[in-house]
Amino acid sequence: MAFPKGIIELVDSLYQQGVNEAVICPGSRNAPLMIALTRHGGFKCYSSTDERSAGFFGLGIALKTGRPVIICCTSGSAGLNFAPAIVEAFFQEIPLIVLTADRPKEWIGQWDGQTIYQENLFGRHAKAFFDFETDDCSAAPLTAMAEPKGPVQINVPISEPFYPSVGEVIPKGEVGRVESRDKRVESKEYRVDFSYFNQAISSADKILVTVGQMEDNSIFETLSAYGIPVIGDATSNCGSTIAHDLLLADESIWPALQPDLHIHFGKSFVSKRIKQFLRTHKPKQSWLIHPNPIGRPDPFLCLTHVINTDAQNFIKSAEWSSKSWNTWNSAKITSLQAEFFAQPNWTELHLYNQITEKIEQESAEVHIANSLAVRYINWTLVKFIKTEVYSNRGTSGIDGCLSTAVGAAQKTDKLCISIIGDVAFQYDRNALWNQYIPANLRIIVFNNGGGGIFRNLDGAKDLPELDEFMETRQGFTAKNTAKDAGISYFSASSAAELNLDSFLHNQGPALLEIHTNSIENAAELKKYMALFKA
Amino acid sequence: MAFPKGIIELVDSLYQQGVNEAVICPGSRNAPLMIALTRHGGFKCYSSTDERSAGFFGLGIALKTGRPVIICCTSGSAGLNFAPAIVEAFFQEIPLIVLTADRPKEWIGQWDGQTIYQENLFGRHAKAFFDFETDDCSAAPLTAMAEPKGPVQINVPISEPFYPSVGEVIPKGEVGRVESRDKRVESKEYRVDFSYFNQAISSADKILVTVGQMEDNSIFETLSAYGIPVIGDATSNCGSTIAHDLLLADESIWPALQPDLHIHFGKSFVSKRIKQFLRTHKPKQSWLIHPNPIGRPDPFLCLTHVINTDAQNFIKSAEWSSKSWNTWNSAKITSLQAEFFAQPNWTELHLYNQITEKIEQESAEVHIANSLAVRYINWTLVKFIKTEVYSNRGTSGIDGCLSTAVGAAQKTDKLCISIIGDVAFQYDRNALWNQYIPANLRIIVFNNGGGGIFRNLDGAKDLPELDEFMETRQGFTAKNTAKDAGISYFSASSAAELNLDSFLHNQGPALLEIHTNSIENAAELKKYMALFKA
Repeated sequence: MAFPKGIIELVDSLYQQGVNEAVICPGSRNAPLMIALTRHGGFKCYSSTDERSAGFFGLGIALKTGRPVIICCTSGSAGLNFAPAIVEAFFQEIPLIVLTADRPKEWIGQWDGQTIYQENLFGRHAKAFFDFETDDCSAAPLTAMAEPKGPVQINVPISEPFYPSVGEVIPKGEVGRVESRDKRVESKEYRVDFSYFNQAISSADKILVTVGQMEDNSIFETLSAYGIPVIGDATSNCGSTIAHDLLLADESIWPALQPDLHIHFGKSFVSKRIKQFLRTHKPKQSWLIHPNPIGRPDPFLCLTHVINTDAQNFIKSAEWSSKSWNTWNSAKITSLQAEFFAQPNWTELHLYNQITEKIEQESAEVHIANSLAVRYINWTLVKFIKTEVYSNRGTSGIDGCLSTAVGAAQKTDKLCISIIGDVAFQYDRNALWNQYIPANLRIIVFNNGGGGIFRNLDGAKDLPELDEFMETRQGFTAKNTAKDAGISYFSASSAAELNLDSFLHNQGPALLEIHTNSIENAAELKKYMALFKA
Repeated sequence: MAFPKGIIELVDSLYQQGVNEAVICPGSRNAPLMIALTRHGGFKCYSSTDERSAGFFGLGIALKTGRPVIICCTSGSAGLNFAPAIVEAFFQEIPLIVLTADRPKEWIGQWDGQTIYQENLFGRHAKAFFDFETDDCSAAPLTAMAEPKGPVQINVPISEPFYPSVGEVIPKGEVGRVESRDKRVESKEYRVDFSYFNQAISSADKILVTVGQMEDNSIFETLSAYGIPVIGDATSNCGSTIAHDLLLADESIWPALQPDLHIHFGKSFVSKRIKQFLRTHKPKQSWLIHPNPIGRPDPFLCLTHVINTDAQNFIKSAEWSSKSWNTWNSAKITSLQAEFFAQPNWTELHLYNQITEKIEQESAEVHIANSLAVRYINWTLVKFIKTEVYSNRGTSGIDGCLSTAVGAAQKTDKLCISIIGDVAFQYDRNALWNQYIPANLRIIVFNNGGGGIFRNLDGAKDLPELDEFMETRQGFTAKNTAKDAGISYFSASSAAELNLDSFLHNQGPALLEIHTNSIENAAELKKYMALFKA
């Protein structure tokens, strides 16, 4: 039997629409997909065995390229191991094309191996499902790229034989012949009548611009130049230097800060306080700027308008002016911080500040893991301004933070630095079980011997179950995992042992494990937070 | 706010119905479930951080206890990491109760952290979905235990605060007060009129009994005593010594073996040949004995009747007699095997035979991993007869083979031995990232440096992509993982280095890594298989 022509055509049609990266997980059933992808000639292909990690690796590539990345697996539970990455891609709005090989339909439920119900495998967490036998799968890239971007599944039933006959030639794709279909997605035309919004902006006295998670961009400089307060977490990449989370620790100032117009760009916030503040001190109007959000997200419980355009277009098209806008002055906070960090000790808070300062001097991007790491990064005195900040905040899981960084590292010449706790690191250590650990990868593991986040939570920290069932003390270090992966290993348990320069400027990929004490970490953080309360 | 009473009642209601094991994955949102479970007093609770591994760990416990095991996780993608274990439990028909903590409904889709669509999270692969707020969740154990057994999900929306107030006492459950509800499930009454079936048995000349995957049992001795041929893979635990897979390698004998009545017990076969044989040499009648299968599974493509009862009841109730039944004589095969194995060398095939022989002398149970391990075990001369054999053949994934063994090891005093390839081992190495590695656990890792199975497949073995995209050569050994987990490590690259006795009789848990060469393995296997062809 000849090699299935339909699969060659499918792969070429994806290529024509600008898809050219594929993460392939080994299997028998998906061998024809693998062969069609690797022999096409236009795809950069990666092989990764653990599908959970492979899914996030693909997500990391898509983060950097902005284009759909193929993740391809065999039939059965393999595809379910993609699910954590799929759901993250769905809520973080990252385009992925999932190619799941399947048994021919007649074999489902017949006790044949690796046969499950693969139709709509990801439920509501995939934007679309395509059945290779009955649907026009060429619509997949367009669907993945349409706002809100996200993952789509193409399920491909494949019969034996899985391999070309001896001597059979698989035609190469016409590399370079990329049709213009994907331009339909990239030519963003938004029809927004700005007259109403311009009127509202001009009559507002207190505008507050909040920026949730966004890719790196400098568009918010425009607003800051007009004196409009722009606040955002580190993951917003908006360049704000306002320490909003610490500022809002003093609830007595909340009434003075209440905006009459609130404009939100990007997606989610890490900070809880900004949500609590806006929920209780509601603006007259609250706008969400998003081309086409999933549902009608209203984390601040005050949404009045969804304006369907992107941030760039909105800022460019709306009419802004300088007036004495409501100011978010965090100068006092900054001086409290400066005083505090001037007396460093060996606890995570100080180390995050020190590391942020160092990284900001490099040309780098950072991938901040959930759950405690992404919080610390918002509390430091030094801010990431020129450093790009990524984090899996779509669903905020710890399940693929490292794999995402390894994937993204394929697509940048900058240092690509994963900052991660010991639990998230161990969870996803198969991120390092592949052949693609690049020289620009750096991993900083904060090892406090368990899930230190729980020790900071009132109510949790005194529970008798804390050790066994929440913090889950664990004695693993990253040393052996680094060794297995051939990564240079640095470790530090004191300031004297910490040499960030030699770690960052190591010749090849490197992992730095910083050992701290979770009880001391929690005490220091508590002391710090007390500074900002009223 | 007082600790939620409904959660205490839910947990107690599960306990009353005989559920008393819980695997809890750390999180904030599920803390009330964790507290209710650990303080109830009637549950054996385990903490495991990687939900993928935790799901299979729970499945391993349920394999041994035959009762539903709770697996409990926080909100968000955590539950999706359970999915590979859920789908395995669904198709292997193992009862599990999945407790997923959730955000309150009004927060879904609001860009709050760890919030996804958790309703029916496992789609068709859970038997039932219960919404804690609206459904009667007390039906969950009964549903999980009803044939076909399987996983059910209870989704529990939980609001803050997650922890009891200082001084608040969580009432203990009334341990020992187990109601009789679960007996409804255990008192199996089947209404089968045997007259038709007895008639068919008595008028048949050539009966063939096939046994798919089943738990250890000796009921098939009855049939063998009547001279009825009973065949099954190692995973059937049916005690058959007929080397059916090798016997059927000679297709010239297929016509003589064609049965007129085929009776199938248990679930799936690993062997492809038995399926190919029956599909092409169809019996007049083919019966499936199963209390209530999922769908109408017909892997042999000849099914005529589904008889809704269990194997024990069917064998006890039907009328059997001795006559000169069609014989499946594998004496010639056995002598070919004996001759072959008399000249051992350092390849996997011989090592599997040697290890099987040694284990069979112990009081042990084995957990055979997918994908090549479970095939080798069917080809050895020595058979597992008194050794219980388990394998994740519901979906045949490599994703949780080791975790399943670690879970099962909690519930047996015998040696519990995982036999696993290097790829499946690395995939699931977080199986060893918990505090429950018991002294009776043994792990035998066959390390051939990659997915050796592909080198045995015609068509695959000569592909230029074999190394990078199929076999995925990997240089990891199990040494560092064993070290991290505090497990004694043995390694052997030659017969002189192999000391099975000291490994098996080690004081604590131990891992033996056997290094072989995949090219030599494939060559030896090919030579072996050629013996049995016509």
